[in-house]
Amino acid sequence: MNSSSENLALLRDALKQKNIDVYIIPVSDPHLGENIPDHWQVIAWLTGFDGSAAMVVVTDSFAGLWTDSRYFIQAEKQLEGSGFKHMRPGPVPEESYIDWLVRNTGEGSRIAFDNRILSISHYRRLETKLLSKGVILKADCDLISDIWTSRPPLPSTPAFDHPVEFSGKERSVKITEVREQMRSLKVNYHLLTSVDDIMWMLNIRGSDVPYTPLLFSFAIIGEEQILLFTGENRIPGKLAQEFEKPGIVILPYEEVAGVLSSLPEGSSLLISPRTTSAALYFSIPESVNIFEDISIPSRMKAVKNRVEIENIGRVMIKDGVALTKFFFWIEHNLGQIPMSELSLAGRLLKLRSQNEDFLGPSFAPIIAFNQHAALPHYSAKTETDTVIEENGILLVDSGGQYYGGTTDITRTISIGIPSLQQKTDFTLVLKGHINLALAKFPFGTRGYQLDMLARKYLWEQGLNYGHGTGHGVGYCLNVHEGPQNISPSGNKILIEAGMLISNEPALYREGEYGLRTENLVLCYEDEETDFGQFLRFDTVSLCFIDKSLIDKSLLEQKEIDWLNSYHAEVYEKLSPHMTDEEKLWLKEKTSEL
Amino acid sequence: MNSSSENLALLRDALKQKNIDVYIIPVSDPHLGENIPDHWQVIAWLTGFDGSAAMVVVTDSFAGLWTDSRYFIQAEKQLEGSGFKHMRPGPVPEESYIDWLVRNTGEGSRIAFDNRILSISHYRRLETKLLSKGVILKADCDLISDIWTSRPPLPSTPAFDHPVEFSGKERSVKITEVREQMRSLKVNYHLLTSVDDIMWMLNIRGSDVPYTPLLFSFAIIGEEQILLFTGENRIPGKLAQEFEKPGIVILPYEEVAGVLSSLPEGSSLLISPRTTSAALYFSIPESVNIFEDISIPSRMKAVKNRVEIENIGRVMIKDGVALTKFFFWIEHNLGQIPMSELSLAGRLLKLRSQNEDFLGPSFAPIIAFNQHAALPHYSAKTETDTVIEENGILLVDSGGQYYGGTTDITRTISIGIPSLQQKTDFTLVLKGHINLALAKFPFGTRGYQLDMLARKYLWEQGLNYGHGTGHGVGYCLNVHEGPQNISPSGNKILIEAGMLISNEPALYREGEYGLRTENLVLCYEDEETDFGQFLRFDTVSLCFIDKSLIDKSLLEQKEIDWLNSYHAEVYEKLSPHMTDEEKLWLKEKTSEL
Repeated sequence: MNSSSENLALLRDALKQKNIDVYIIPVSDPHLGENIPDHWQVIAWLTGFDGSAAMVVVTDSFAGLWTDSRYFIQAEKQLEGSGFKHMRPGPVPEESYIDWLVRNTGEGSRIAFDNRILSISHYRRLETKLLSKGVILKADCDLISDIWTSRPPLPSTPAFDHPVEFSGKERSVKITEVREQMRSLKVNYHLLTSVDDIMWMLNIRGSDVPYTPLLFSFAIIGEEQILLFTGENRIPGKLAQEFEKPGIVILPYEEVAGVLSSLPEGSSLLISPRTTSAALYFSIPESVNIFEDISIPSRMKAVKNRVEIENIGRVMIKDGVALTKFFFWIEHNLGQIPMSELSLAGRLLKLRSQNEDFLGPSFAPIIAFNQHAALPHYSAKTETDTVIEENGILLVDSGGQYYGGTTDITRTISIGIPSLQQKTDFTLVLKGHINLALAKFPFGTRGYQLDMLARKYLWEQGLNYGHGTGHGVGYCLNVHEGPQNISPSGNKILIEAGMLISNEPALYREGEYGLRTENLVLCYEDEETDFGQFLRFDTVSLCFIDKSLIDKSLLEQKEIDWLNSYHAEVYEKLSPHMTDEEKLWLKEKTSEL
Repeated sequence: MNSSSENLALLRDALKQKNIDVYIIPVSDPHLGENIPDHWQVIAWLTGFDGSAAMVVVTDSFAGLWTDSRYFIQAEKQLEGSGFKHMRPGPVPEESYIDWLVRNTGEGSRIAFDNRILSISHYRRLETKLLSKGVILKADCDLISDIWTSRPPLPSTPAFDHPVEFSGKERSVKITEVREQMRSLKVNYHLLTSVDDIMWMLNIRGSDVPYTPLLFSFAIIGEEQILLFTGENRIPGKLAQEFEKPGIVILPYEEVAGVLSSLPEGSSLLISPRTTSAALYFSIPESVNIFEDISIPSRMKAVKNRVEIENIGRVMIKDGVALTKFFFWIEHNLGQIPMSELSLAGRLLKLRSQNEDFLGPSFAPIIAFNQHAALPHYSAKTETDTVIEENGILLVDSGGQYYGGTTDITRTISIGIPSLQQKTDFTLVLKGHINLALAKFPFGTRGYQLDMLARKYLWEQGLNYGHGTGHGVGYCLNVHEGPQNISPSGNKILIEAGMLISNEPALYREGEYGLRTENLVLCYEDEETDFGQFLRFDTVSLCFIDKSLIDKSLLEQKEIDWLNSYHAEVYEKLSPHMTDEEKLWLKEKTSEL
């Protein structure tokens, strides 16, 4: 019996005691974002699975975990001996555990969960599917706090300023613009639960979690004041003083529900149902008119301003130089200096750290050799660390947080001579990457319409990848930051000029290798015709693409042209920051195909 | 003042009398489908606009009509002098009039509509957007019946049998299969409001509206009985007798709300929220558990059975022969016999009518010359009828209802010598058509992922078309019949083997010409790989594509191959039914590019 199965036994005791039939746990916290502080890593503690997306269902005789295809292989491994079954989802992954509940519960079943970490929109899906079966939903049920004795505390790092030379807009201006939109929507209050929204609006950052500079907090924007729920001890004196002018009032973190419950009768409140917990939702008085939409800052910050775009350009050069020097070092030291996935991660971090405004990695880097590269979200640990040998595929997906932007880039390189299949696979993935980079589309287009461009060449050969093609990227914030994305999932947000998005088609051959080429692209306006305003992408990430993995015969001329022109730009922008030896090598890496 | 503006004045009087600020009218009826009987053509009577999709909003100082881009040009023309303003929608057309309401109403505004013809899901959208503003929704407000004095009666044609040699499945078998799915969903009752669902399940048809063999009715499926609300006079004796065995009970049409209101306490009912009116929804007692999803027959009938697929193959030959003979006749008689859009429609109908199991056209044919072809849903009328001259573009979009299937096919042909731009446009549209026809995609793919395949080549040149690429097609039922489609709209229904869908990219140059190539495609299983079960399309419509409009230099080899192989199939299947002279001509029309 490992610790996971002990924890499961403890949870089952609690179920029995409280007379509950089914307990549901999401990977989540009260802010319903992707960066979960250790305090809320309930599923990792309970099951051993530490992926970023999962639902767990526990009954007295069943314990199952649903995750998405990114984590299938990882879940199989990490759940071994935990007592939890890895459940493969159906065509609509987020509905799959609910479908299980529909099939396996009935009249009078008591289903419980902690509604502080379940969104109101998620809660409604449960209601819609389950209430008609006569089940009882017990929403405010925290069974974990009592049994998780060594639980880590809530985060408590201090905030720091994100200066206007990087943010491009004073906090007072952002607040005014948000309030203008509130007025046009005729709402008096706006609840912000997504931490990144608050960071963006107030031009502050924190260090509460690894990889993303967040200060966990809630905010309520009113017509005169902004209530920031985070605790006075978290805001240093100088910032607190600057907060006075725009009317930002600092309150304790835990008081947000209480303040919501005392909003004036007849007032109107804008909330985002996907990032507002059911618990907070239920604390709003019935006499308040609730308006539901994605938050105003979340739409605004997705469109980068001029200063941000200029900084992104500068950061891409710094980041590209670090990554290029990294690959140079590998090629020149392989076989002489021992290298492993973990040691390489250390070297890459060291190279990025030489940039002055570097804050840290933007996510746990994926430096994965051969079969590890087939795990889309692999992250090397001591027990999995693999030595880089003479022959194989090395996938490096990494990024940095800079004051002037967030990067995320993947390159796959061949160590030694690649196989024919590897070259074919890499080239098919690259064709998708290039065709998305070259996309031209009218205003009004959603990401799900573009996803196919990256997937078509794989589908034609009976191949595919199980994740989206692109995610929105924050600015010195979340590396995954919507609302926009490029994926089959049906997200209705329009792709607009100023949005930063990743372009990362891939292919994973389980047990063999994985391939992915990822750049960030910025959306720009193209021509306006009788048929509307057209948009295009500009690729902003800068690093060579390994030509030794390309089968040129599979590329069309326009694809070759894109690659050659991209490589010329990479050389032009990066070479001034390279040594002569590195320059010579980069010239060859970026020479015409 | 024309009759529309008189009617508007009458409606405004009624608004004043009832103390209503805003009156909303959809193009709709109590079944919320696309085929609206004359009795419910309120917008056509009120505004003069007779397109199949629109929302009208009337206040004491404003009268506006929203429709989608298919009807922009038509709306501009038909609304002239009506007192109604044509409102162009924003990026989410169906939300645009609601956004207008949000901006133009406030606390205490009284907004009214007839909830017998507004779906409950539409009603909820109104609630979500408007209630928080403090407006008052008056849902059961019929202002039309009193002022529309010459209103046509409700339809009253008799039902007829759709024999099993065409339907492929006895009605008793279909009923059993629907009940099996009801049991697995744990529902006791299933309300059917879509007339096509009822026709399919009971293997009956009617003649209530032009173009689609429907018998307007509601049905409630219970565990023992099926209540069919349509009136005894509508079901001929022999059918009524056959209905007894499977427990089909015939009740008056207007009793459906009453029966719903008396469903047993604690029972569960499946309804489809998009096709159930708010009025029917509100008639369901609170003690009934309501389950919401698209209807079971609607999913089942979308996947054609083996007998249906065989019949579709046969019908496509008959339909293709008629259309091919039609084009032969045009080419051999142009300049000798006067031809107009209307006279050609008559000739095409005559040719289709020579098929024994032909029931009638499946929609008002679009036979449109030059600038008329730029109106995607043009239908020639006496006052618009145009003579076919020596030079120009002729677009023919037509289809038939047969016992063995429903057809819908568009061909665009050049009369005389086409311009370079016409050839480029036609070829770009054709590239989209071919690439969608050639699509290969994994199970789990939605139509919105495939839409891009047909649009890409146009977008690259700053061109586009304002409608979806493909709609589902019924079987001796609606020519537009979901739930599947291929469009940017975000419909989450998966494309499955057995589904019949149109493939109809297009291009419209306002005031000049329009081009569209449409075939129906059936979805089949392709290979199964490590990456899942792949699917593909088989093009089933049969008629040559006008090579004189093709610029071969714009086609890739695989596109040329598709066209040559399609044309070989067209010749092989159609020529046995042609005269020698026609055969010779068709051989040339289908010769290799």
